[in-house]
Amino acid sequence: MAPIKVAAVQSASVAFDLPATVHKLIALVGEAKQDGAQLVMFPEAFLGGYPRHLDFRIGARTDADREWYSRYVAAGVRVPRDAVGRDWLAEQADVSDDFWAFAQLCKVAKEQQVHLSVGIIERSLVGATLWCCNILIGPTGILLSRHRKLQPTAAERVVWSQGEAVNKDGNNVSDNLPVVATPLGRIGGLICWENLMPLARYVLYQKGVDIYTAPTADGRITWLPSMQHIALEGRCFVVSANQYHTSKDYPEDYPAASASTEEEVWSRGGSCIISPLGEVLAGPLWDKEGIIYAEIDVDTLAGAKLDFDPVGHYARGNLLTELIKG
Amino acid sequence: MAPIKVAAVQSASVAFDLPATVHKLIALVGEAKQDGAQLVMFPEAFLGGYPRHLDFRIGARTDADREWYSRYVAAGVRVPRDAVGRDWLAEQADVSDDFWAFAQLCKVAKEQQVHLSVGIIERSLVGATLWCCNILIGPTGILLSRHRKLQPTAAERVVWSQGEAVNKDGNNVSDNLPVVATPLGRIGGLICWENLMPLARYVLYQKGVDIYTAPTADGRITWLPSMQHIALEGRCFVVSANQYHTSKDYPEDYPAASASTEEEVWSRGGSCIISPLGEVLAGPLWDKEGIIYAEIDVDTLAGAKLDFDPVGHYARGNLLTELIKG
Amino acid sequence: MAPIKVAAVQSASVAFDLPATVHKLIALVGEAKQDGAQLVMFPEAFLGGYPRHLDFRIGARTDADREWYSRYVAAGVRVPRDAVGRDWLAEQADVSDDFWAFAQLCKVAKEQQVHLSVGIIERSLVGATLWCCNILIGPTGILLSRHRKLQPTAAERVVWSQGEAVNKDGNNVSDNLPVVATPLGRIGGLICWENLMPLARYVLYQKGVDIYTAPTADGRITWLPSMQHIALEGRCFVVSANQYHTSKDYPEDYPAASASTEEEVWSRGGSCIISPLGEVLAGPLWDKEGIIYAEIDVDTLAGAKLDFDPVGHYARGNLLTELIKG
Amino acid sequence: MAPIKVAAVQSASVAFDLPATVHKLIALVGEAKQDGAQLVMFPEAFLGGYPRHLDFRIGARTDADREWYSRYVAAGVRVPRDAVGRDWLAEQADVSDDFWAFAQLCKVAKEQQVHLSVGIIERSLVGATLWCCNILIGPTGILLSRHRKLQPTAAERVVWSQGEAVNKDGNNVSDNLPVVATPLGRIGGLICWENLMPLARYVLYQKGVDIYTAPTADGRITWLPSMQHIALEGRCFVVSANQYHTSKDYPEDYPAASASTEEEVWSRGGSCIISPLGEVLAGPLWDKEGIIYAEIDVDTLAGAKLDFDPVGHYARGNLLTELIKG
Amino acid sequence: MAPIKVAAVQSASVAFDLPATVHKLIALVGEAKQDGAQLVMFPEAFLGGYPRHLDFRIGARTDADREWYSRYVAAGVRVPRDAVGRDWLAEQADVSDDFWAFAQLCKVAKEQQVHLSVGIIERSLVGATLWCCNILIGPTGILLSRHRKLQPTAAERVVWSQGEAVNKDGNNVSDNLPVVATPLGRIGGLICWENLMPLARYVLYQKGVDIYTAPTADGRITWLPSMQHIALEGRCFVVSANQYHTSKDYPEDYPAASASTEEEVWSRGGSCIISPLGEVLAGPLWDKEGIIYAEIDVDTLAGAKLDFDPVGHYARGNLLTELIKG
Amino acid sequence: MAPIKVAAVQSASVAFDLPATVHKLIALVGEAKQDGAQLVMFPEAFLGGYPRHLDFRIGARTDADREWYSRYVAAGVRVPRDAVGRDWLAEQADVSDDFWAFAQLCKVAKEQQVHLSVGIIERSLVGATLWCCNILIGPTGILLSRHRKLQPTAAERVVWSQGEAVNKDGNNVSDNLPVVATPLGRIGGLICWENLMPLARYVLYQKGVDIYTAPTADGRITWLPSMQHIALEGRCFVVSANQYHTSKDYPEDYPAASASTEEEVWSRGGSCIISPLGEVLAGPLWDKEGIIYAEIDVDTLAGAKLDFDPVGHYARGNLLTELIKG
Repeated sequence: MAPIKVAAVQSASVAFDLPATVHKLIALVGEAKQDGAQLVMFPEAFLGGYPRHLDFRIGARTDADREWYSRYVAAGVRVPRDAVGRDWLAEQADVSDDFWAFAQLCKVAKEQQVHLSVGIIERSLVGATLWCCNILIGPTGILLSRHRKLQPTAAERVVWSQGEAVNKDGNNVSDNLPVVATPLGRIGGLICWENLMPLARYVLYQKGVDIYTAPTADGRITWLPSMQHIALEGRCFVVSANQYHTSKDYPEDYPAASASTEEEVWSRGGSCIISPLGEVLAGPLWDKEGIIYAEIDVDTLAGAKLDFDPVGHYARGNLLTELIKG
Repeated sequence: MAPIKVAAVQSASVAFDLPATVHKLIALVGEAKQDGAQLVMFPEAFLGGYPRHLDFRIGARTDADREWYSRYVAAGVRVPRDAVGRDWLAEQADVSDDFWAFAQLCKVAKEQQVHLSVGIIERSLVGATLWCCNILIGPTGILLSRHRKLQPTAAERVVWSQGEAVNKDGNNVSDNLPVVATPLGRIGGLICWENLMPLARYVLYQKGVDIYTAPTADGRITWLPSMQHIALEGRCFVVSANQYHTSKDYPEDYPAASASTEEEVWSRGGSCIISPLGEVLAGPLWDKEGIIYAEIDVDTLAGAKLDFDPVGHYARGNLLTELIKG
Repeated sequence: MAPIKVAAVQSASVAFDLPATVHKLIALVGEAKQDGAQLVMFPEAFLGGYPRHLDFRIGARTDADREWYSRYVAAGVRVPRDAVGRDWLAEQADVSDDFWAFAQLCKVAKEQQVHLSVGIIERSLVGATLWCCNILIGPTGILLSRHRKLQPTAAERVVWSQGEAVNKDGNNVSDNLPVVATPLGRIGGLICWENLMPLARYVLYQKGVDIYTAPTADGRITWLPSMQHIALEGRCFVVSANQYHTSKDYPEDYPAASASTEEEVWSRGGSCIISPLGEVLAGPLWDKEGIIYAEIDVDTLAGAKLDFDPVGHYARGNLLTELIKG
Repeated sequence: MAPIKVAAVQSASVAFDLPATVHKLIALVGEAKQDGAQLVMFPEAFLGGYPRHLDFRIGARTDADREWYSRYVAAGVRVPRDAVGRDWLAEQADVSDDFWAFAQLCKVAKEQQVHLSVGIIERSLVGATLWCCNILIGPTGILLSRHRKLQPTAAERVVWSQGEAVNKDGNNVSDNLPVVATPLGRIGGLICWENLMPLARYVLYQKGVDIYTAPTADGRITWLPSMQHIALEGRCFVVSANQYHTSKDYPEDYPAASASTEEEVWSRGGSCIISPLGEVLAGPLWDKEGIIYAEIDVDTLAGAKLDFDPVGHYARGNLLTELIKG
Repeated sequence: MAPIKVAAVQSASVAFDLPATVHKLIALVGEAKQDGAQLVMFPEAFLGGYPRHLDFRIGARTDADREWYSRYVAAGVRVPRDAVGRDWLAEQADVSDDFWAFAQLCKVAKEQQVHLSVGIIERSLVGATLWCCNILIGPTGILLSRHRKLQPTAAERVVWSQGEAVNKDGNNVSDNLPVVATPLGRIGGLICWENLMPLARYVLYQKGVDIYTAPTADGRITWLPSMQHIALEGRCFVVSANQYHTSKDYPEDYPAASASTEEEVWSRGGSCIISPLGEVLAGPLWDKEGIIYAEIDVDTLAGAKLDFDPVGHYARGNLLTELIKG
Repeated sequence: MAPIKVAAVQSASVAFDLPATVHKLIALVGEAKQDGAQLVMFPEAFLGGYPRHLDFRIGARTDADREWYSRYVAAGVRVPRDAVGRDWLAEQADVSDDFWAFAQLCKVAKEQQVHLSVGIIERSLVGATLWCCNILIGPTGILLSRHRKLQPTAAERVVWSQGEAVNKDGNNVSDNLPVVATPLGRIGGLICWENLMPLARYVLYQKGVDIYTAPTADGRITWLPSMQHIALEGRCFVVSANQYHTSKDYPEDYPAASASTEEEVWSRGGSCIISPLGEVLAGPLWDKEGIIYAEIDVDTLAGAKLDFDPVGHYARGNLLTELIKG
């Protein structure tokens, strides 16, 4: 394979406004494409948004809680049943409003001829459950993979459900820890603090991930070393995008936003791109919106695995999986 | 079997003070025994306490959050490895401080010769994870069963982990949805809103539960009809105990408690005991501490199942489990 | 969706007289429509009737038994093959007598522009089998769904057969636990003590039921708490209609009716409408015929699922379905 | 527990001279003790040395290769059979020359009353196999644990054998991935690039490691981020010591050393101490010998696990271990 | 069974050029077939090549190391998942480039109607790990067995990973110490110095090996006595093939090859065929390429076992396996 | 350790005449000592003799058979109870006739200050059982080890019993596969075709054998390659002594001897000494009596294990012992 150019978009959702965020995404994909990107990656929860500072008390829910939850559900993205690996867009004469946002993602990937990795808040087709999800759409406009975050962090657990090993969907069962072979390399990833889960990463390594995407909402300075470690450990390229957002990116009546008249930075960003030997190729980008780029060459991965292949010659898998089971 | 007397204790934990709560429990067990109770049942999280109104924001944890979590962990109850079904108390020359609270529970059950069902906040022996747990100790002082709540509700998910199908513990694997045969009948149960989970209840019915214990932290008036329904659906006796607690049961520096000088009722109670045909035998007890009692006769359960046996003649299990799997 | 008005009709069949009962139904639908109802719901076995107090002995059948069964079959409703989802009425040049009652139902729903949910005794097109069935007809006059009760209770089993997972019918296979999307929301339900079956309810929750219909013949005071529980558990609206009938609603020669000259209340009613948080919105209506109404708003269901989604974030389905299978 | 002081010693072995290196170690332990250290940690292969730049060709071994291997074996440390957990020193009237170095380690730990963690090249009691090993000796002079590196890196595989799950030794079987409870906290660790093995780390987390020691021979700048990541992922303190050595620390006839008259830095160091939230508490120390110190408080670990407990509430172990096994 | 003719091919790989080596192999198989061979056996690493004199230093990897490793990986042979025992060739409409070399092996075995035993460097389908592997393909073109070398020797460990007890592969688990029944007899074997591993040989004896293949890269004169011993010990036929190669068989830029302008013999050969009583039937062939042949008769093996059956009457297995375990 | 000189004595027993053979042995030890030997090794069954060509039929024993067996028993060597490791000679005031031969062995070893390894026919202290045995006596005159052959070959099984894992003897249990540490190195070995048993050899390797003694009665030319292989496989020195005997070394009435007046060579010898890399250091000595010598240096063994340690870095013991057990 030839070297490719990847982009990590650091930007803010228009919180609680799905259509506006979709339009913003379309523009950003266009910009990245203009700059030569073949894989364009967005942060965690970019569509649907991250309800930062929404708070919940143990043992009681208020009407306001339910109202904000309803608004959050309404801003979520519905993914059609059985869409993974199927040319859903082509099969739909006209798209119902339910799937408008999803259709836009497919269309922009196809029009711009890019691989598009986006963090979305997925909304259940039945009931009112949400998952923090990451999807990858190919330049064919086809949904290539969907990953629902396995374990939300702290108060996220109030609004997001857990992912499971597989997603059961209509007649279909799709892998929830997918790594998909694309012309750019094998692409997979985890979301935010899932990236701290050693077993989850190991599952991706077993599937041969070349380009590991790590969308996040963690704007701490300790995020960068974790990305470097994962690249080293997995001997893969890591592309990580975070939101940069402030209190002004939220509705005026949003509780935490209305608490202060000052604009507060709620997520500083820190998007970065890392080589398989742990070198920082781009970023970290702090304290503003922007797109970072790097040229990467998956053909160098074999050489990088000379001295460490986490699921191959360096795995001791037979020994260690026994210890973990026991 | 002869009819027996069961007690549901409605009382408040001394929040964040495990020793004081243990002493309170010992006194209450003595009182219930005095009144003739053979099964004494305490509310959810009675030992360890229910951190009502503690709040958490999405996307950030403060030092104060960590400090309260540490205090909450410190107030948790450690259960020794492999303790289920073993005369742990007899095997210990002297009990380490780690297991002091657990040992007190075993001792009081043995001294008072009662079956003791208690909601505890179980503290992991490794790491710092908590589970909302219910344990049953027999008059032999032996731990008969342990159940970790499968799914905490809303912001509880920040502080409590999920239970699994089994508890792996040292060399032992114990059932996490246990129903145990005792001289009083087969005893099992679920915690708080687990009681809204149809599949979880079904698992207990499959195991033949006669006396269904439902410790809770739900003080709503809709709790009673759910208890009646479960008795009818499971054709079993239901014994439900809730905490009655106010803001004064919490430390002075507890955030929600210090927000107001008024004593606020945070949980109204509503403990109750229900017959297998849905009749209210005792309670609901509202707005105060107290113990409710009822005489129950498990020999009447077969007759109650003439027209409804949820896992027998009325189950259609072959048909329905297929639909649920698919 | 806008809030809608639903009606639960509490009324008595004209026992063993299908045409008379059809006419009574048409009148009642008109009345409900007059009052603004968009969904009109009738009790279990409204067409066909509930043969209360008919008795059977183990090991012997009398000629009288056979005679009453014949009359009961004759009062049953034939449903055309493959009618579900098809504009059967429009396709029929003229309706045969066999399907007269069914055609009336379709016509009244279309004329009154309501969704019509009716309990019927369905009669087999071949042979002489009966099912206790519930059908939903839309304002288009099209049969939207049919559900045959899975498990009759006690002596009902002498006269009613069991429903299966699907209904095979001509070239068609239709779901026997259907939930159908309508402009009012997704509508589904169970009949009488099927409502005590946890797995059956779970199947409906999986299909996203918003408006849960519970036609019944249970006039006990414990019915109401079960309806409240189901609303809470399913986080859906529950609409339950029961017959109010007395011995006078049966033929004079009906054995139980002729046993006494006094009018005896054989079913007290108890129809009710419940909110997704377990609140009683209408009813229970006791000891008389009548129609109860409530305005419901399915858009509030997402908010209600913030803290409990039985098949979403609160399901633990992977874990529990395994336990049920095993 | 009270906060404690830990030291990571960055120093060079006297290559191929075990007695000289033992004496250097004794002096360094004394210095660290003087400065208040309670846990003193040395780099990988400190006793025995790291044969950097020794080279081997595929498919042939020369007499010189065998000669250097013999010298390297001779510089290795013999650990007595069954020594773990036993007061071996007390049981020996006089120590044979075979175990002189081991005895010195036990003695210095006891004399200085420190916990001593040392990387050694362990020499087999039978045959001529070497393991890269880390041992922990308590202030009692007792060997508390021994860990043989599971997988050497690249050409290390020529001279070092692999560790296994357990070490079989005389009548004894000792854990090869030990975490031991000490008055300072639970101590365990991995060696050099084992620290890149996600499953091996997971095993230590399962055992509750509080103080994670990471002796290494990796002097790259990417070592620091890996240490930060492990602290975050394991929610534990990480103490990492590396050798600082140059070509002058090797014998004059050592092939790589004699290749140039210039002193070349062969390992730059980079020792560091990290907090459970990934903050750098001490180091990285580059380009010289030295000892770094930090005060750490294991009582803060529970608070750090509020939002991430890798083997507890954030593990999803049931799900993930299945995927890894399959 | 009738006596058969076996061939051991002594030849050189075209180093780092997989297609050229495949074509050379095809020609050599044709020649052996011409001469009547029914089993044609090639040396260790014939496809993929043996990187003799590539050197690696402890503690550092250069870019050149990584580059040569990449080239070596690129010259490796991919074996399709689950190929053992399956007519993979027939199932593939057209073979992807990934599996071109493997397909050629299957095709030539089928076209020439021979059993083909070839040493290959197997390349992992995921990651970049290599195994030194031996495969056996039948005259049906089906892969009959695959064996990955258990333990590489010395610096081979830098580039080759270890084999395990079984190979996990897609849905399949295949034995890594296989002995397969063929019309020629039961065929199994070990690679190079694995042949010095007593326990590994014992495993093959337990499986009844009749024709023991020993591909090697050991050109020492001590190879022959080991082959004789194995035949005696295993009471089986031993067929051993080695490469004959010189520095000229390597690329011009290959480090060791470019070190001298003289052609150096890097492997002298020594291929041989041995009878079950230790007699040399063919070879050893030294200092040139060539094919050696022998006629063997597996029906003579029972007689050879009259006085020694390593896993039967002479095994003392109960006694000895205990000693080895303890 | 300094290099040492070892001797393998190739000589004939005076068949069926124990005293004469003892005297012959004493003379040969003296000769070897004269030539500088520190370890003097005799063939299998040197004391007691090898009853070559004695025959037995299946299903019947003659008086002559019994007579020859009696004579053979009488020529056997009694070993005192509990003699291993004890200064038996010093403890005996005067030696009974029973132990005369054994005492002579102890005395000569002490007098000549050699390590003496002798094949004996051991006679049971009770009953009339024989074992083919090898003993090692130190220059202290103490019996250092005794090994009874595990499995006699073919018709040997009529006259020799099997060895077991341990020899139970009085209050003592001594290892039957012993390797003893001596100032010369660790010495152990197997007898004749035991040397073809891979598991038995492995047990010795596990015990660290440096000098492997292989007394034999196999005079075939294939013996030498087996000795070379064992040296390579065990990375140890191998010293092998065989009898050279003819028909004239047997009594005149010995059946096979009397069959011909010609002197027939019944065992050609073939004694040899091999280096750990498989090189022949002395012998093979064919067709005559004699003593062969070699200087060996156990300090070179570590270097020899650089690339192969059968029980260390090259063992894969965890994997392989499982397969053998299964």
